[in-house]
Amino acid sequence: MKATLYEGNKTFAVVEKENETPAAGEVRIKVAYCGVCGTDVHIYHGMMDQRVNIPQIIGHEMSGTVDAIGEGVTGFEVGEKVTVRPLDNRLEAESDKGFGHIAKKLKFIGIDSPGAMQQYWNVPAFTLHKLNQTTDLKLAALVEPLAVACHDVRRGRLLQGETAVVLGGGPIGLLVAMVAKSKGANVVISEVNDIRIKMAEDMGFEVVNPVKTDLVAYIEEKTNGGLADVVFEVAGVQPSLDVMTEVAGIRGRIVMVAIHGEKKPVDLFKFFWKELELIGARVYEGEDYEESIDLITKNELPFETLITAVEPLDNIQQLFEQIDTNPNGMKYLVDCQ
Amino acid sequence: MKATLYEGNKTFAVVEKENETPAAGEVRIKVAYCGVCGTDVHIYHGMMDQRVNIPQIIGHEMSGTVDAIGEGVTGFEVGEKVTVRPLDNRLEAESDKGFGHIAKKLKFIGIDSPGAMQQYWNVPAFTLHKLNQTTDLKLAALVEPLAVACHDVRRGRLLQGETAVVLGGGPIGLLVAMVAKSKGANVVISEVNDIRIKMAEDMGFEVVNPVKTDLVAYIEEKTNGGLADVVFEVAGVQPSLDVMTEVAGIRGRIVMVAIHGEKKPVDLFKFFWKELELIGARVYEGEDYEESIDLITKNELPFETLITAVEPLDNIQQLFEQIDTNPNGMKYLVDCQ
Ligand SMILES: NC(=O)c1ccc[n+]([C@@H]2O[C@H](COP(=O)([O-])OP(=O)(O)OC[C@H]3O[C@@H](n4cnc5c(N)ncnc54)[C@H](O)[C@@H]3O)[C@@H](O)[C@H]2O)c1
Ligand SMILES: NC(=O)c1ccc[n+]([C@@H]2O[C@H](COP(=O)([O-])OP(=O)(O)OC[C@H]3O[C@@H](n4cnc5c(N)ncnc54)[C@H](O)[C@@H]3O)[C@@H](O)[C@H]2O)c1
Ligand SMILES: [Zn+2]
Ligand SMILES: [Zn+2]
Repeated sequence: MKATLYEGNKTFAVVEKENETPAAGEVRIKVAYCGVCGTDVHIYHGMMDQRVNIPQIIGHEMSGTVDAIGEGVTGFEVGEKVTVRPLDNRLEAESDKGFGHIAKKLKFIGIDSPGAMQQYWNVPAFTLHKLNQTTDLKLAALVEPLAVACHDVRRGRLLQGETAVVLGGGPIGLLVAMVAKSKGANVVISEVNDIRIKMAEDMGFEVVNPVKTDLVAYIEEKTNGGLADVVFEVAGVQPSLDVMTEVAGIRGRIVMVAIHGEKKPVDLFKFFWKELELIGARVYEGEDYEESIDLITKNELPFETLITAVEPLDNIQQLFEQIDTNPNGMKYLVDCQ
Repeated sequence: MKATLYEGNKTFAVVEKENETPAAGEVRIKVAYCGVCGTDVHIYHGMMDQRVNIPQIIGHEMSGTVDAIGEGVTGFEVGEKVTVRPLDNRLEAESDKGFGHIAKKLKFIGIDSPGAMQQYWNVPAFTLHKLNQTTDLKLAALVEPLAVACHDVRRGRLLQGETAVVLGGGPIGLLVAMVAKSKGANVVISEVNDIRIKMAEDMGFEVVNPVKTDLVAYIEEKTNGGLADVVFEVAGVQPSLDVMTEVAGIRGRIVMVAIHGEKKPVDLFKFFWKELELIGARVYEGEDYEESIDLITKNELPFETLITAVEPLDNIQQLFEQIDTNPNGMKYLVDCQ
């Protein structure tokens, strides 16, 4: 079978290797598609060379079918469509308070251990979520990032009829906007990149470019002064942190999805004054995966539009080079079949 | 009757004035005691001269008895012990989403309109909360700041058996610690002032001086790695903001009680990583007042110890001068009888 290897130094290799028998407690998956995550691009750029085990197979946004079943694994049949929730929480401790998805010793499969950018992938059976037999396997490569969005919306306790402002219309921001819309919220996306603005508009979203339009005044007008009930910070930049506390109304909830590598100035007075909440959100829990799979299976949201290109495993090097030169691209998939 | 007037320029006057008949919808209270709030000290320092209407009677942490009842007011009897929740939300709008206590056009009685540092005080009847006839009127002057603490603890959703870390052992911090203890939480106070540390210890609290002891290591040890379930930021300083995200465990809740006048650096990565929550808390709602009155009436917590001195109305100028020269003092009361 074919596998790809990140070898460091912005280089991938495509190699032939043995198809391994699944160990006890494991399942071998025939991988169908694997999406490229922002994290995979960071790895490609060498920013995680301390964490990955070079040469390493990466990738964690995948779909596939059960190919072989290890000893002691029950409840799966060869040929069933599945996806993997790539969280290995086997070292979860009591001090993690039951939140295994963010356990201190959590291992992220595809970063801390081999990933899905290969034809066959062995994973612990507990990471599997079943797809519906009607689920499109290409779209199902979006289950993982969509589950991030389901988790974010759930953490924000977003209700039908509420106003949600999504700061940043990248892949995660757009998925958050879609899930928010599926809850019956009034969604406005704030985005600065013209091509991404156009894309979000084509998907039917109301989009504001905060460089050209006063976002706070816009939302104030739209909500008769009530401002946003929930704000999603998915841009990861200071202007977004500056506006999040302004655009949130009384008792507004701000979901922190973006990853801010260093301490940044935040208007804490507004937290006191309007009794705002800031809610951190990281990856997903089992129920977010189930919701995501449901949404992908129903396919009533513009998921397809998010997929910029699909490339075979053999082209992995060119694919990452292409991602680097196209800042407007959204989701790229590797076809592992 | 006697009233005090803040005249600007760190000056109070004591004046004689007419005892006014309560207007329709109002009640006249014979004021018993009125506490000095941090805000009153700010006013004294001239920092709120734009907001107060000089010369003005200030004060809002009070207890008293009903003295006369205006037209249309029902449910009160002359002689009943009462306290005032000094929030005038008559301009509450729909965009305040039902949170009248933090309405955009909220008026704070005693700052935006005349306060309680006088012998008789007319207030809208809707601001009254009845005390028990057994409630001590001196302690009842603490109902307002204690209601702040009840609100903070409620916002933090603190549960029995959880670990609460209170950053700052000033009057509000100590009251938060007391309410947290009344919920059955394990409470640790972090405080840097030796006299306040001693005071908190004498009250039976576990206190850490974060300048001398590594607070995070201390709480980590105490909780077997679980760290704090709820952190109360009641110090208002940068070191406290730096430690709050460290000392909170997975899914920890950080209640922002302190008022930070400007944007300050916050470790947003930790919010993402541990799925922390930052929860703004401002003043109180009706139910916080009721809980506070209950606690004061039961008098099972060391409220008495918080009272540094009680001075008659006539000594108001000396009282504020004394507060300025004694940074260790806690609660000062004006005896208005
Ligand atoms: N919480 C989690 O578990 C989780 C999971 C995946 C990704 N993330 C994080 O979510 C964030 C978004 O991910 P992504 O893949 O969509 O990233 P992305 O960089 O593609 O998207 C960010 C978007 O924000 C836009 N933007 C920049 N400045 C802006 C501004 N001032 N106002 C509005 N928009 C602005 C950019 O044009 C871009 O489209 C990243 O920080 C990523 O690390 C978090
Ligand atoms: N949210 C509200 O509605 C509300 C109501 C009242 C007061 N407040 C605010 O609450 C805060 C506390 O009020 P207070 O009257 O108790 O004030 P305070 O200034 O008396 O108390 C602050 C305490 O923090 C201590 N401190 C300073 N640096 C510290 C550090 N590094 N670590 C630990 N402790 C440290 C100080 O020694 C002091 O005892 C203020 O910011 C006040 O404005 C908010
Ligand atoms: Zn991902
Ligand atoms: Zn006060």
